[in-house]
Amino acid sequence: MTKLILDLDTGIDDTLALMYALGSPEAQLLGITGTFGNVTVAQGVTNDLALLALFGREDVPVYAGIDHPSTAERYTPAPGSLRFHGTNGLGGAQVPAVPTQTVQAMSAVDVIIDAVETYGPDELTIVPTGALTTIDAVLARRPDLASRMRLVLMGGALTVPGNVSPFAEANIHKDPEAADRVFKSGADLTMIGLDVTMRARLPRADAERLFPADTAGGAFLAEMLGFYLDATAKTAPAGEAGCCLHDPLAVAVALDPTLVTTLELDLRVDCAEPGRGRTIGDPERLLAPSGRTHVALDVDADRFYERFCKRVSMVARSRC
Amino acid sequence: MTKLILDLDTGIDDTLALMYALGSPEAQLLGITGTFGNVTVAQGVTNDLALLALFGREDVPVYAGIDHPSTAERYTPAPGSLRFHGTNGLGGAQVPAVPTQTVQAMSAVDVIIDAVETYGPDELTIVPTGALTTIDAVLARRPDLASRMRLVLMGGALTVPGNVSPFAEANIHKDPEAADRVFKSGADLTMIGLDVTMRARLPRADAERLFPADTAGGAFLAEMLGFYLDATAKTAPAGEAGCCLHDPLAVAVALDPTLVTTLELDLRVDCAEPGRGRTIGDPERLLAPSGRTHVALDVDADRFYERFCKRVSMVARSRC
Repeated sequence: MTKLILDLDTGIDDTLALMYALGSPEAQLLGITGTFGNVTVAQGVTNDLALLALFGREDVPVYAGIDHPSTAERYTPAPGSLRFHGTNGLGGAQVPAVPTQTVQAMSAVDVIIDAVETYGPDELTIVPTGALTTIDAVLARRPDLASRMRLVLMGGALTVPGNVSPFAEANIHKDPEAADRVFKSGADLTMIGLDVTMRARLPRADAERLFPADTAGGAFLAEMLGFYLDATAKTAPAGEAGCCLHDPLAVAVALDPTLVTTLELDLRVDCAEPGRGRTIGDPERLLAPSGRTHVALDVDADRFYERFCKRVSMVARSRC
Repeated sequence: MTKLILDLDTGIDDTLALMYALGSPEAQLLGITGTFGNVTVAQGVTNDLALLALFGREDVPVYAGIDHPSTAERYTPAPGSLRFHGTNGLGGAQVPAVPTQTVQAMSAVDVIIDAVETYGPDELTIVPTGALTTIDAVLARRPDLASRMRLVLMGGALTVPGNVSPFAEANIHKDPEAADRVFKSGADLTMIGLDVTMRARLPRADAERLFPADTAGGAFLAEMLGFYLDATAKTAPAGEAGCCLHDPLAVAVALDPTLVTTLELDLRVDCAEPGRGRTIGDPERLLAPSGRTHVALDVDADRFYERFCKRVSMVARSRC
């Protein structure tokens, strides 16, 4: 059993990642912490609470994380985020459920500190799928916890171009300074970047069979996914049908690292333009590698996709 | 026995690469073709002829390649090339030998076409260590030869920063358009980039024992290598003692691919600023890989270095 904390900016593929976690018998979801990216923290935790109500899992607590980049006073989603996730993060679809729980009073930073102190890296994995600002704040407060922290994060691009610039992937680009500190913190870090998530795809033809067509929950999920598929189709090169399962792949690898092949390479994040947000090998650590950074460069896409469909559709059919 | 054609821009580490080839019992050096980069083609082939005379190997013919980028009328070495290789490409050291052969009348393009037609990829490997302009010209003239061509090239940087910009490595940056066409040609291509050559180092402390101290040839090689070590020391981060054995590693891998671990990933070369010259995964081919591009991401540096010292010092001691 792997204990998980999902640090989500929910988000369409974050929703699918949450479903993957809820559908995984080997996962125990301790909580969701909210970060920013696809949406604001406020919108993200609103979505989390509604989704947990829809899935009948209000036993999972939701905590708000830091709501702005470490170098800025506030955060507003970029046009690219709105294009892929809609203004409410769920492609404009409305979750057909009313939550009975509210966001916890405890901060995301405090709950992560508590969890990492209580459980070591063999028991607990944290899966950030948005800006790394909250994780950075945890490590700034308690740098000693880096040696106990296991992160499997969706973000970055090492061997392929970025998606917000030729150099940068969106999650890292949201707060490059925070990401750079996290990458250099000494935490055990697996990067699930565009290198592999661009190859973990959901074809449009498969989308309909994932969700029950005759329930309000199924209709919501189909509408949400349709928005994402439409947005992807507008930007994808010819022949690349379907949308990328970015965040679900990170959850899947947190539970089963054999789904990807990794390169051991310490990374830094470039903070200066024009490469701002680029994840790249850190020349300062090239000759004395830490062995703590694992960059996924290949993925068993078929095995992941089969597992994804099974788990997500199971949650949708049993809970919606 | 592997037949080699070295496409050199000679150059200090090109000189060491030539020595590695001459010291390899499993290599048959068919010829040297001259490209530009560290030096002009004219300077490079002048150096090749003198070095072959010094090493007593004037049986190896030298051919001049294309002497300017595919997008420019002429080529002048950049300040960075002069800083690392000196104005004559050999750190200002003078080769103590007078060649009796001259450059061949046949062009490098023609001789490569002939060799690839005569020998298939199982027999012949071409090792470019400078601009890929001549190789591009071969493939432009005879695109059908791509399926028969095996290239092991020094150039590029996939997982680490570049050395002429944060994004670009020098050899690829010399003619990005030519390099992009070569990467997309369908030739079987192994990229020995900064990813691995930055870890293949010659410490200064070892430099003296490589060459015989009491001969004119040994003194020349020591002076040449001292220039390179001094130039590296001025730019290297603290603690990274010694110079990189860029080009010798490409020759070593051409003869023994087990020295590196490769990633199968089709690449493109960015031709637009600010990333001009960057080698990066080609999104157009991500979902349908050719299996023809092998990017070295890890190196057995100790095994390579031991072999390098043995072969290069053997050539120096027996021939100089």
